[in-house]
Amino acid sequence: MNIPVELAERFDRNELVAAIAQDGTTREVLMLAWMNREALTLTLTTGRATYWSRSRSALWVKGESSGHTQEVKSVLLDCDSDAILLLVDQVGAACHTGDRTCFHSQMMLEIEPN
Amino acid sequence: MNIPVELAERFDRNELVAAIAQDGTTREVLMLAWMNREALTLTLTTGRATYWSRSRSALWVKGESSGHTQEVKSVLLDCDSDAILLLVDQVGAACHTGDRTCFHSQMMLEIEPN
Repeated sequence: MNIPVELAERFDRNELVAAIAQDGTTREVLMLAWMNREALTLTLTTGRATYWSRSRSALWVKGESSGHTQEVKSVLLDCDSDAILLLVDQVGAACHTGDRTCFHSQMMLEIEPN
Repeated sequence: MNIPVELAERFDRNELVAAIAQDGTTREVLMLAWMNREALTLTLTTGRATYWSRSRSALWVKGESSGHTQEVKSVLLDCDSDAILLLVDQVGAACHTGDRTCFHSQMMLEIEPN
């Protein structure tokens, strides 16, 4: 497993990284979750998106119980090694509410967009 | 400023929320940064993406020095109120490296994608 040094050091300090899942076809942003070293390693070696649940303090293979898995097509690390972008094939809904994406609550801009 | 209760409580506890900037036209994911209440309020009232810099402990109007601003078209909150998705018009490069997106480092999947 070839993890870049800066990211490995982050994991050594027990820091998590944010992981964004984006639909590889529609480019819709589906959800944001968290990864530790083991979650990232499993994601890269199984091709199935795996996160670290902060509320349950446990690894979480996305869709393991719901069937709404994410097959990972591509994994990209950002410039300061604290965020990961997954391009995925989403089976069914990404959100536990049944919505396709977790980002479904529009906030009101108080100016008129250009 | 109409901030949903769960998000307001998060800010009251001095927690930050992750903010993903996505190009509103190409749907490319550009960067991930952080927001506190003031950063979100400024984003919603000025229409210009504003973040909280954790390293500098200061508000950060994206592009204020580089000119690489983000004009915000839409703001979406996720289902558990700890992440925000901004759809933006990105002027120039989002990344300080000069790349269009901060997610430019591909990690190797160790299985063959389906």
